[in-house]
Amino acid sequence: MSVLDFLISPAEACARSGPNDKIVLSSRVRLARNLRTVPFPTHAKKADRVRAYETLVPAVRSLAMMGDDAFADSMEKLTALEKQVLVERHLISREHAAKGAGSGLVLNREESLSVMVNEEDHLRMQSLRPGMQLRQSWLALDAVDSALQEQVEFAFTPQYGYLTACPTNLGTGIRVSAMLHLPGLVLGEQINQIIQAVNKLGLAVRGLYGEGTEALGNIFQVSNQMTLGEAESDIVERLDKVLKQIIENEENARIGLLEKKPKVLFNHIGRAFGVLSNAHTISSKETMNLLSLLRLGVDLGMLPASRKGLVDELFLVSQPAHLQLAHPAKEKLGADERDLFRADQLRTRLAALEKPDHTKVVLPPAKA
Amino acid sequence: MSVLDFLISPAEACARSGPNDKIVLSSRVRLARNLRTVPFPTHAKKADRVRAYETLVPAVRSLAMMGDDAFADSMEKLTALEKQVLVERHLISREHAAKGAGSGLVLNREESLSVMVNEEDHLRMQSLRPGMQLRQSWLALDAVDSALQEQVEFAFTPQYGYLTACPTNLGTGIRVSAMLHLPGLVLGEQINQIIQAVNKLGLAVRGLYGEGTEALGNIFQVSNQMTLGEAESDIVERLDKVLKQIIENEENARIGLLEKKPKVLFNHIGRAFGVLSNAHTISSKETMNLLSLLRLGVDLGMLPASRKGLVDELFLVSQPAHLQLAHPAKEKLGADERDLFRADQLRTRLAALEKPDHTKVVLPPAKA
Repeated sequence: MSVLDFLISPAEACARSGPNDKIVLSSRVRLARNLRTVPFPTHAKKADRVRAYETLVPAVRSLAMMGDDAFADSMEKLTALEKQVLVERHLISREHAAKGAGSGLVLNREESLSVMVNEEDHLRMQSLRPGMQLRQSWLALDAVDSALQEQVEFAFTPQYGYLTACPTNLGTGIRVSAMLHLPGLVLGEQINQIIQAVNKLGLAVRGLYGEGTEALGNIFQVSNQMTLGEAESDIVERLDKVLKQIIENEENARIGLLEKKPKVLFNHIGRAFGVLSNAHTISSKETMNLLSLLRLGVDLGMLPASRKGLVDELFLVSQPAHLQLAHPAKEKLGADERDLFRADQLRTRLAALEKPDHTKVVLPPAKA
Repeated sequence: MSVLDFLISPAEACARSGPNDKIVLSSRVRLARNLRTVPFPTHAKKADRVRAYETLVPAVRSLAMMGDDAFADSMEKLTALEKQVLVERHLISREHAAKGAGSGLVLNREESLSVMVNEEDHLRMQSLRPGMQLRQSWLALDAVDSALQEQVEFAFTPQYGYLTACPTNLGTGIRVSAMLHLPGLVLGEQINQIIQAVNKLGLAVRGLYGEGTEALGNIFQVSNQMTLGEAESDIVERLDKVLKQIIENEENARIGLLEKKPKVLFNHIGRAFGVLSNAHTISSKETMNLLSLLRLGVDLGMLPASRKGLVDELFLVSQPAHLQLAHPAKEKLGADERDLFRADQLRTRLAALEKPDHTKVVLPPAKA
């Protein structure tokens, strides 16, 4: 079974909702773990990698929380396109997409739990949920981690905690992150200030695809940096607290824009709609930035709330691998062809969408 | 009676059509004349200017071809706003709009004949028609000139011809020009080549408001430079011939774009429509450039031919004085307020317009 047949459709995936999902697109926790008795992937020979793979894939698959209909396969069995689709869904890392024989993926039916085998560490386990659900994500992943430890022995020392390939993950091996949509702070020119403040708290702010990527579509990933000397639950609580503060800042930024520069805001959102629904060629970057404004339009009431799913879906399917998948041609599209096809898809899908109506905006109450 | 009550409405003015008006927006001929016995305006004392005014306004008004319902008044009676409206309608020059007492305007009911008194010369007479009608414009103005010479004596020498304030008008005092819409040559990057070729033929290429103005909205004014040593009818014929060549170049440029880069063209036109019908603030310059693309969309069949009048009307009413006129406030709008009001007007008027449909484009046959 191809992973593409396994995956939930973009429309279904984007129909999901979660707490505070006007601003928090998703909450994610991942744990890095390694087997005690096998060299780490970065130093492993092929036989070692195979041993880790053959130990871990069945072990993960057997877990009750993965369900009895999980997807599990070697990365070698996946095409480049399938891997890229998984990256765009945030189910595997870009690094893992480059892996082949000896590396694998186990994914549960709901796509809320995804486990990479032989990425940088033997195990990279991820719990992903829509909206602000850091604690729920953590609890789900903690259960996976505990259940797994009944079957395999992880590299662990009382002094350092869990050992990992990279020292930045040493200790808890935890990375807690949330994907935030912050157009208000960007348009209100407060984003750099917020990023600096968040950095000072020992948290990292990154772009859409993690480390070293650009914040396309006004989307920022906030995550913990430190993994050592703090309990997992404390890290989760700390990030949760900071995120609540960022959410409040974003809400106030939106209110501030509505109060001080409503026409500028309406202008951005109106033009975004106009271009997306009438362009005949459009880059991925422009698309994301304009869809971000359309999502803001939904949040502000200029477009019906029921359209959020469509906007999120367009965001997903406008990405290269999803476009390739939707295209009738089997040959790999060039960048220009992709830009043409992306525009065609957007025009078609947005044709039914009502125009943004600024008279429908309701100013929410400002918070202290 | 205010000149604003006299003027034809923008919708009526733009409903007019003429030969080849896909490319030739209007044809214009003007003659510069001076009274023999009165110092030229640039050197005249107030009493001289009044004398010229009192001789010429009644004389012009009495002409049969001006009709019995012509508008005639002193520039001093017109407000700054009224003058600016006349400039935007191409009925007076920007220079004449700065004039006051002692300068005047006579305008026939159809606005096809407009006579400025005491601009740079005692008389600047203009014949203006929609589309490619250089000869018709010339014949109409020649009749005015002849009829007037039965009443007043013009400064004329057998050696130099008609004497004018500026030597560039000496001789025939004629300026023949056409306003051309050349988006194909601009998008096809052939416009500079054409301008150079036209310049070599002794013709000038200028922007929307004549000398020293920018070619906003892909609109170019082509006119003769020489007024000496060539008969008026020869000048008209020569320009007519060059214009036919430019029209053919523009038509071929459009066909070339449709054949070689249709998506680029559809993209420009689609985005123009999207922005114009959804912006909440828009500058005059951006508006003109986007309306130019919308007009091209009409010409190519992407929008119904019946919408040409609307596009031309929006072009006219998006200009500062026309906007001020349409605005409920009596106070002069600032540039920012104008940009907001312009966008409101465009959104409202374009709400009923169907989206550009690239499948409706019919490729015209290329010419040799």
